[in-house]
Amino acid sequence: MSESRLVVALDLTDKDRALEIARSIGRQVFAIKINWPLVLAGSGSIIGEIARVSRVVCDFKIADIPNTNSIIAKFARDQGAWGIISHSFTGLESLRSVVEASGDTKVFSVVAMSHPGSDLINDNYRKLMDISERAGVYGYIAPGNKLSDLSEIRKRTKKTIMSPGIGSQGGRASDAIKAGADLVIVGRSIYESADPVTAAEAINEEIAKAVEQN
Amino acid sequence: MSESRLVVALDLTDKDRALEIARSIGRQVFAIKINWPLVLAGSGSIIGEIARVSRVVCDFKIADIPNTNSIIAKFARDQGAWGIISHSFTGLESLRSVVEASGDTKVFSVVAMSHPGSDLINDNYRKLMDISERAGVYGYIAPGNKLSDLSEIRKRTKKTIMSPGIGSQGGRASDAIKAGADLVIVGRSIYESADPVTAAEAINEEIAKAVEQN
Repeated sequence: MSESRLVVALDLTDKDRALEIARSIGRQVFAIKINWPLVLAGSGSIIGEIARVSRVVCDFKIADIPNTNSIIAKFARDQGAWGIISHSFTGLESLRSVVEASGDTKVFSVVAMSHPGSDLINDNYRKLMDISERAGVYGYIAPGNKLSDLSEIRKRTKKTIMSPGIGSQGGRASDAIKAGADLVIVGRSIYESADPVTAAEAINEEIAKAVEQN
Repeated sequence: MSESRLVVALDLTDKDRALEIARSIGRQVFAIKINWPLVLAGSGSIIGEIARVSRVVCDFKIADIPNTNSIIAKFARDQGAWGIISHSFTGLESLRSVVEASGDTKVFSVVAMSHPGSDLINDNYRKLMDISERAGVYGYIAPGNKLSDLSEIRKRTKKTIMSPGIGSQGGRASDAIKAGADLVIVGRSIYESADPVTAAEAINEEIAKAVEQN
């Protein structure tokens, strides 16, 4: 697997196009992130298909009761997902059920979000990090386009931070790395590009420079 | 469609079993609720298949950025879902994107949950109801096994309240109705029963008695 720190979000509903891009960039990126729209359009087996060519992060923003959370997490684990994203505002029992069902699949908990109006979550990031530590998460999701939130969260943990909000949501990969992100999520700028391989390589280089300067 | 107030949660991962139960009870219940595990095991088209025999509520606990929320809500609407469940904790823009993409599909927002440890949500139910009213939701999700929360929420709205937490999570259908629920969600007690039709009818009768006494 490459030393890239780039996670490519395939926020697509065209399963064949998603698989085509995954196969073309799978070896040059850290992981490929998929979410519910792609599952709805195809089925849960897309996780396993992409897992053959790349690490897969299931961005399922899990936020239900423990029983349902466990079934979702177990499914992703059985399909070979490297990581899974869960909310933490639903509380300790809810998040712990995800961690317990995930086995080796790494659980990232959302403690701040990248979209406008996410104050109820972002203002509670300390409480959410406390819940997440008690649940035993592997790492955190913190917004790469809200750098003050990201650096506050960085100060409070040595765990892996994965940052969305780059590109179409206004953030820059290099800024997110400098503010403390370990992994950077980029979507439309790559999967909507005419040449995703070149687009991914350009971001890999931007990230590598920022890592050197850090 | 029947005058039942019962919503049956098919929290299954066996698509054929889910369809079999849906066909057998579809006409005697208000709606059938499905969630992510069933979609993961099959595909999004299960929504449309069940919509042929019953109203369908997509319990997707939507909690992502607006762009992703819109795609999920639009998919459910295009499949003929009667209702869809979204979180409100992710804020006004996030919830509004669900309402705007749902068209005629009715959006229920979660303002209190039924599982242990959901305090961060339940303690914020006033804020969440305010966000939900501004987003223009059709109704609310409030726990039928936490009757004081449910009746507080009832006092603050005339909109339709749908209540989970009945049966295996400890609540009783009749108590939830008396505390202000309009629709009651029951899952395992029906889909795990040897005779789901009879089990559903017994709960319909319990609910009807409670409605009369109200």
